[in-house]
Amino acid sequence: MDGPTVGPAAIPGLAPLPATMRALVKAEAKPGAELREVPVPQPGPGELLVRVEAASLCGTDLHIYRWDDWARERLGASLPRIFGHEVAGRVVAHGAGTTGRGAIPIGTLVGAETHIVDGTCYQCRTGREHVCANLRILGVDTDGAFAEYVIIPAHNAWPSEGLSPEIVAIQEPMGNAVHAAFMEEVAGQSVAVLGCGPIGLMAVAIVNLAGAARIFATDVNPERLAMAKALGADEIIDAREDVAQHLKNATGGVGVDIVLEMSGAESAIRQGFDAVTNGGRVSLLGLPSRAITLDLANEIIFKGVRVYGITGRKMFETWYRTQALLAQGLDLTPIVTHRFPMTRFDEAFDLLAGGHAGKVVLLPGEVH
Amino acid sequence: MDGPTVGPAAIPGLAPLPATMRALVKAEAKPGAELREVPVPQPGPGELLVRVEAASLCGTDLHIYRWDDWARERLGASLPRIFGHEVAGRVVAHGAGTTGRGAIPIGTLVGAETHIVDGTCYQCRTGREHVCANLRILGVDTDGAFAEYVIIPAHNAWPSEGLSPEIVAIQEPMGNAVHAAFMEEVAGQSVAVLGCGPIGLMAVAIVNLAGAARIFATDVNPERLAMAKALGADEIIDAREDVAQHLKNATGGVGVDIVLEMSGAESAIRQGFDAVTNGGRVSLLGLPSRAITLDLANEIIFKGVRVYGITGRKMFETWYRTQALLAQGLDLTPIVTHRFPMTRFDEAFDLLAGGHAGKVVLLPGEVH
Amino acid sequence: MDGPTVGPAAIPGLAPLPATMRALVKAEAKPGAELREVPVPQPGPGELLVRVEAASLCGTDLHIYRWDDWARERLGASLPRIFGHEVAGRVVAHGAGTTGRGAIPIGTLVGAETHIVDGTCYQCRTGREHVCANLRILGVDTDGAFAEYVIIPAHNAWPSEGLSPEIVAIQEPMGNAVHAAFMEEVAGQSVAVLGCGPIGLMAVAIVNLAGAARIFATDVNPERLAMAKALGADEIIDAREDVAQHLKNATGGVGVDIVLEMSGAESAIRQGFDAVTNGGRVSLLGLPSRAITLDLANEIIFKGVRVYGITGRKMFETWYRTQALLAQGLDLTPIVTHRFPMTRFDEAFDLLAGGHAGKVVLLPGEVH
Amino acid sequence: MDGPTVGPAAIPGLAPLPATMRALVKAEAKPGAELREVPVPQPGPGELLVRVEAASLCGTDLHIYRWDDWARERLGASLPRIFGHEVAGRVVAHGAGTTGRGAIPIGTLVGAETHIVDGTCYQCRTGREHVCANLRILGVDTDGAFAEYVIIPAHNAWPSEGLSPEIVAIQEPMGNAVHAAFMEEVAGQSVAVLGCGPIGLMAVAIVNLAGAARIFATDVNPERLAMAKALGADEIIDAREDVAQHLKNATGGVGVDIVLEMSGAESAIRQGFDAVTNGGRVSLLGLPSRAITLDLANEIIFKGVRVYGITGRKMFETWYRTQALLAQGLDLTPIVTHRFPMTRFDEAFDLLAGGHAGKVVLLPGEVH
Repeated sequence: MDGPTVGPAAIPGLAPLPATMRALVKAEAKPGAELREVPVPQPGPGELLVRVEAASLCGTDLHIYRWDDWARERLGASLPRIFGHEVAGRVVAHGAGTTGRGAIPIGTLVGAETHIVDGTCYQCRTGREHVCANLRILGVDTDGAFAEYVIIPAHNAWPSEGLSPEIVAIQEPMGNAVHAAFMEEVAGQSVAVLGCGPIGLMAVAIVNLAGAARIFATDVNPERLAMAKALGADEIIDAREDVAQHLKNATGGVGVDIVLEMSGAESAIRQGFDAVTNGGRVSLLGLPSRAITLDLANEIIFKGVRVYGITGRKMFETWYRTQALLAQGLDLTPIVTHRFPMTRFDEAFDLLAGGHAGKVVLLPGEVH
Repeated sequence: MDGPTVGPAAIPGLAPLPATMRALVKAEAKPGAELREVPVPQPGPGELLVRVEAASLCGTDLHIYRWDDWARERLGASLPRIFGHEVAGRVVAHGAGTTGRGAIPIGTLVGAETHIVDGTCYQCRTGREHVCANLRILGVDTDGAFAEYVIIPAHNAWPSEGLSPEIVAIQEPMGNAVHAAFMEEVAGQSVAVLGCGPIGLMAVAIVNLAGAARIFATDVNPERLAMAKALGADEIIDAREDVAQHLKNATGGVGVDIVLEMSGAESAIRQGFDAVTNGGRVSLLGLPSRAITLDLANEIIFKGVRVYGITGRKMFETWYRTQALLAQGLDLTPIVTHRFPMTRFDEAFDLLAGGHAGKVVLLPGEVH
Repeated sequence: MDGPTVGPAAIPGLAPLPATMRALVKAEAKPGAELREVPVPQPGPGELLVRVEAASLCGTDLHIYRWDDWARERLGASLPRIFGHEVAGRVVAHGAGTTGRGAIPIGTLVGAETHIVDGTCYQCRTGREHVCANLRILGVDTDGAFAEYVIIPAHNAWPSEGLSPEIVAIQEPMGNAVHAAFMEEVAGQSVAVLGCGPIGLMAVAIVNLAGAARIFATDVNPERLAMAKALGADEIIDAREDVAQHLKNATGGVGVDIVLEMSGAESAIRQGFDAVTNGGRVSLLGLPSRAITLDLANEIIFKGVRVYGITGRKMFETWYRTQALLAQGLDLTPIVTHRFPMTRFDEAFDLLAGGHAGKVVLLPGEVH
Repeated sequence: MDGPTVGPAAIPGLAPLPATMRALVKAEAKPGAELREVPVPQPGPGELLVRVEAASLCGTDLHIYRWDDWARERLGASLPRIFGHEVAGRVVAHGAGTTGRGAIPIGTLVGAETHIVDGTCYQCRTGREHVCANLRILGVDTDGAFAEYVIIPAHNAWPSEGLSPEIVAIQEPMGNAVHAAFMEEVAGQSVAVLGCGPIGLMAVAIVNLAGAARIFATDVNPERLAMAKALGADEIIDAREDVAQHLKNATGGVGVDIVLEMSGAESAIRQGFDAVTNGGRVSLLGLPSRAITLDLANEIIFKGVRVYGITGRKMFETWYRTQALLAQGLDLTPIVTHRFPMTRFDEAFDLLAGGHAGKVVLLPGEVH
């Protein structure tokens, strides 16, 4: 195969690929973003071209939009950049080498693993692709999904027929929650989910489906706590309370078996280490914005705790499990609270920044 | 403490301990059993005396009742023996050394782990008590629970307040199913349960609660298959079909992730190894009545399969998990199909032998 | 990149690639093989062309040479076939897509993982490439290494600079032994290696380096037992003895923690299950030539044993570990007992068939 | 059995038990300790009386001797206290219930697990005795081993015939190192041991015996680094260097697979998290004297690291492994640098405080 093939015939009703597309671009080193008309990219070897049907907003996108310290350091040298990485779309063209056994046909609805890996480093060769030594992130290190079309490595595309585009897009953050939850067996265990942003809420729903014995959820936001309750939390706790004492009381002094730390807040992290039972486990997924002070002796060592740093998703055990949980009827629709055409991106980011939204989805297809 | 203390005062309404009790005794080396009046036993150091409220029948009890080859070899030298081991009852007296920290108060409803272990062998000292090198089985190597009173080591008693006696009794076989199912993570995995006797049915309910992706159940008995369906099986299959082909077709050629072999039938064992996906796992719990012929190269080695021999319950991880699953509302009541006063034991065994019953429970308290 | 590039400049002294080469071909459906002059193959996308420096003989090769039932069924439809798969050689040309990040430079000495995988099936996407659903074997399903040049997928080539070619070649069977041994921790455990063919002998050396507490080795061949002793076995046992009793006596009645079954002999398999301690583990690697009769109840279930089917090598955890063990000074040279120019292949196969050789190596480069 | 039985007849040459003994007592809430004549204790149910042959000094003992903040808080309410817990001695009397199956005969040389557990809590019932919810420490919460006789629960006594008393005593800290090292497989992995106090040095020797691929050791003390080298470290590094960069350079940029943090120093902890490879593991054993500041996002979460809090020893998997490693010839004698009669305790503590000693052993038997 010499170059990308475009398959309009394979998708009845699909217009031929246009030359340009609308994309949300971080063009300058300052807050905000702008919609631009840019060329539709061409898939290289091993890549697919995907027409975006939905792209949800992640906290990372907000960092980029706001152009905070993290964003400046991470993306400063690579502007302009189309951002966005939680994506659902349909395959419209194959790059070289993507049409053999296991190929994903033109027209297939796919989500995307956003960790783009080199496939040859020590990590990739030993079952740890998600922490590839030369990791690149879709929409951060490559042009992303807040656009009408996006390039996705075939290795990273996840066929998702039968799901709605917005659920397809949020499989990526859902996979974070699945990864954090299933580091060890969940059924019959007590679980505290600290922080009920979208990934925390997904974690509540997931461990509920997986037979967790008791599920505790914390947050400072009563709406989020109410949603946690609706998704299966047995008990919701205001994070400003003495959470650890609450959890110990609720477990007869034993503490919880599993802590899923989804907030990144120092107070929650310390509550988690305090509340976990001796010999229990803590998954750290929430990203603290600065260094945290820990009493390692009393919080980890004397308790004989196992701590798991969680990033990305196991490629692709986590995706199969995510797919299976959705197929069993796990319903994440309530977590998607807002949908906007891409032109209203400013509104979407404001909403996300306000902290009262669940998952916010952009619909690039509606811009035209 | 010098000797057993009896606590009638602690259980208002409890009559003082009688000198003798009614017990179902395997007295002679021939089929059948007889009800006898025997002395109420005295708990020794580390033991509890328990007044039996329910005792369910296990296949092992039927072997003893029928006095087949296995029973002859295993119990020939130890008659007379009170048999029965799946038990629920209330603590009525403490043996020496059972009243300190963690003591189980008089009057507590308890179930029993039936593997009586030495606590000092290599297995017991390395987290494998259930395969103790000097294992004794309640009701086989010691007098058992088909009686008004039974001696249970305090180490083996499992406080079970809040459950009905018949559910307390069947926690023991349920624990077998929990042990088999949770050798590795279940959520999001496809599971085939081969054989829908009571333990197989429990396994169906358990993996359903634990978020198994798809549950397949096989048996030759349509009533049992119907019950499997009611307890959560997604698909039921007549075991006389080409089960492996059926499972492969149902999984797009992949095979199932997990096989729980609960029947002991050679045909089922081979179906399981044939149907498991490459790199999957098989829990063997059903006991074949004779040696089995296996094509190890194609069924285990080339497939890279993990095979787990399952006996007893992990002491006591499995019990905590069993308890948690029941607390979450797992309802095993439909599996208990018959209840008899102990005087009608012949009827109970006939029913069990007929293969159309679920779990059959004897109620020793009703003999008087 | 359009096609293979040949890099004579990169290897000073390398002659330009010839048009044809000498290869050992299974040409007809009958015993034996023949040396033929055939075209040097061209590497396709993702493939490397490797000039062979050493190729060792495996039992599989003997099956093909003898043309037994297995060979007839497995290869009958694909003759003529160049066979041989345990290989060491130098990269002489890159196929398309093999020159980017992580590329293996022209001239590099490589060994080869012989499981050629599709990279897209359930197994490959979940960390189990070695049991790929569409597995092809080098030298069985593709043309192999008993030739001057061989095509190896870049994914399968293992850079091995600093080792002698014969050691590079036998990394593949050594990897089988590493895989079998390290399914769980070895240090401080008692290990029985059943069968001291080359892979069994390697296993003895490996578990010795890894701090096994005591190493027992069995075989019927005194020369092999002597070599096992030299490689680190603490005790050698004639396999015709009551091996299980011997092992129990030697371990104070406990049995061994780990059984590595490397022979495929029914008697050894049963000895292994008899000798393993309750809750221990058995790796099955040796391939029985026919179905085996097992008493699953007593040999696996009541003992709570874990059984691992071992095929191939974990890709590529096992290779990293193999590499590390060799780097620490594990010396497998004594296991290589014979070396022949490829022209003397009949002699080599006769020797292998006789059962008195260790590893036998063919040197294709010496045919000219 | 009614009370302790004394077995002078069983140990020819053993004098009858005296009424009083010499013991090192922390009598007052101030620095120092004093030798006192106190009654020989009587073993209660489940306990053994042991005549001490050697007792080594641990950092904990130094804290008690110095009466620092930790000691004041931990022991303030329980003075006077005989301290010391790393012990070797011979059984001289059995408490009630310690003479049945698995009993340890009078005269047996034993070491001691120093975590005294309740046996009934959630942790104890689920394979995690070492983090018992009601843990008591020998020589801290009970009278200890700096005395001529000490009470040890039979459950905690570890028969150790064939070893010298000083090695028997240091099995306890060696077990810490074994526990830290073997949380996962060691063979073929690169290991950094941070901190070469006695436990760090033992860890070097242990992972060397267990086939670690490369062993790096750090400390600020050149004598300790020299000893690490002698015990098997491939490379020693001054801890004041840029250790993480050094380790990355030495591993081709990959980082180390395993970090064993044995120092408790904040700088070392951070070096460890920096140097560990993505997806690697860190065992935290060294106790920081105060809270530590960590960049969890970059040091644990983005790297997908597993962190294990290590306290005590797995009871008794770790002890079996420790025993096996010693039986294989692991020689820890070089780590024991000083031996004193108990009367010279001040000298021993001064030496320990100076930081130039390895393991320091007190010999209570030499005081008379």
